[in-house]
Amino acid sequence: MKIFSKQQILAALDDNAALAAVEEAFRRFSAGEAQVAAVGHLGFPDMRGDCHVKAAHIHGDDEFVVKLATGFYGNPALGLPSSNGFMAVMSAKTGETLAILHDEGALTDLRTALAGAIAARAIARNGSKVLGVVGSGIQARMQAQQIQRLLGLKQVLVWSRRPKSASMLAADLQGEALSLTELCARADVIVTTTPSTAPIILNDMIHDGTRIVAVGADSPGKQELETALVARSRIVVDSRAQCVDHGEAGWAVRAGLTQPAALVELGELLNAPIHFAEEDVVVADLTGVAIQDVAIARSVWLRLHT
Amino acid sequence: MKIFSKQQILAALDDNAALAAVEEAFRRFSAGEAQVAAVGHLGFPDMRGDCHVKAAHIHGDDEFVVKLATGFYGNPALGLPSSNGFMAVMSAKTGETLAILHDEGALTDLRTALAGAIAARAIARNGSKVLGVVGSGIQARMQAQQIQRLLGLKQVLVWSRRPKSASMLAADLQGEALSLTELCARADVIVTTTPSTAPIILNDMIHDGTRIVAVGADSPGKQELETALVARSRIVVDSRAQCVDHGEAGWAVRAGLTQPAALVELGELLNAPIHFAEEDVVVADLTGVAIQDVAIARSVWLRLHT
Repeated sequence: MKIFSKQQILAALDDNAALAAVEEAFRRFSAGEAQVAAVGHLGFPDMRGDCHVKAAHIHGDDEFVVKLATGFYGNPALGLPSSNGFMAVMSAKTGETLAILHDEGALTDLRTALAGAIAARAIARNGSKVLGVVGSGIQARMQAQQIQRLLGLKQVLVWSRRPKSASMLAADLQGEALSLTELCARADVIVTTTPSTAPIILNDMIHDGTRIVAVGADSPGKQELETALVARSRIVVDSRAQCVDHGEAGWAVRAGLTQPAALVELGELLNAPIHFAEEDVVVADLTGVAIQDVAIARSVWLRLHT
Repeated sequence: MKIFSKQQILAALDDNAALAAVEEAFRRFSAGEAQVAAVGHLGFPDMRGDCHVKAAHIHGDDEFVVKLATGFYGNPALGLPSSNGFMAVMSAKTGETLAILHDEGALTDLRTALAGAIAARAIARNGSKVLGVVGSGIQARMQAQQIQRLLGLKQVLVWSRRPKSASMLAADLQGEALSLTELCARADVIVTTTPSTAPIILNDMIHDGTRIVAVGADSPGKQELETALVARSRIVVDSRAQCVDHGEAGWAVRAGLTQPAALVELGELLNAPIHFAEEDVVVADLTGVAIQDVAIARSVWLRLHT
């Protein structure tokens, strides 16, 4: 068993290899070629903390991956990062522990951003130029970087509840901080990255043809998009089962405004592209699936190992 | 994050401290003072392998524990042990990974044996002298050692489907290998440790007053005791929910012969001892609960850490 530190992992990471691995994992997941374990969860409400344990195997791979991820939201006040944890790379031939990737959440951050970029590429209109970023945390920054890189979007607009953070992020991305209404009016592609539990983007802010990647709603109770906006849109989901349970799509399904059968999985879309009309609003609802962890951990492991 | 090898873990282990920790964990679990995550499972049928991920936290502890355990039953043919995995000791204050106990299954083996001994002590008649061991694998050996140690039983009888293994184990334990019928007739306490999927011990083999600790049935489809035997007995379970789902008790409950309300949890029994009549047959149905992993991992961690 080998242990690799966050520094070693980041040094070994190849963004393009990781992107290809995550995209392939989505394809195989939606083709029924992956096994995903029930997610284990522990909560520590006194410390505003939680722990998720995810495990998956893609058929035929020599390795499977178990991820342990924690978020303790009082840590920053103690001078500590809120995210922690590791991914264990296990042999699917013998069950031996091959490696502990002690990424302290870095691989989760990246695989989440890569999924956003893959979804953005799959739903963006040709000729898209302007990216709108809603939120100003680590995912706002990473999604912006990966989506810009993959789609070659020239212009970035930023809005956040925290104006100072929005300005700092906009400066770093050589973009512009502005009002949410203005961002929605000007952006071709919008990525939403907040932990909101009430809609931030309302239906009448969004004009026809806008494409939205929503990554904030990753557990029950979270919501960034008004239900009417989701109901009006074509909806792409990372996992039909998860998104109906706790994604943006879930709110529309529970309200009876969207049929689960109308949801298209990202992997299905990648396997058999769909033509969206220019004027379609398209929402990609991403809740995070363990196969993304498998893909990125294996991608790093194969480079560290050889 | 510190890593400890199996050798370091075994050197730090104190059987009495671990026993006390596991017993206390059962008490607190049944008092509703523990949080147990849904168990994650992946199967690798081509390799006769599986992986279980368990996580739990006992209220107020500074640490929680996530266990990853694999069993690949073709490994011995390759000269490898079938069990592998580790326990991660995590901070319940910050979510940081404190230690990886790379026990390769050793802590699971021990906590399972300790639970058997705790259950045997809780249900044995005063004056019990003879222990019957059904099976001849690692759990047969460890259960025998822990139960003998804790109850001071003088005599050990062994039966296994594999007569050679039974003779070897009997020799090691300074006991006697014999037929199953004879074992059942002579033993005061019987421990069953096989992976059987059909009853081995039949109702009419067991005389009144016998006490049985059944540890083999730890997943759906497994069964060591005839359903009529379980239905005739007072039943102690490690976890009511788990045993109704996949323990010996489950067979009797599904057959309508036992009411779930009649099951007593081991922690309840430890918290408020019950008087069993001399002639009662008592079965302790143990399926394995994550709080045992928490208890033993913390017990080792506290000794390794200070």
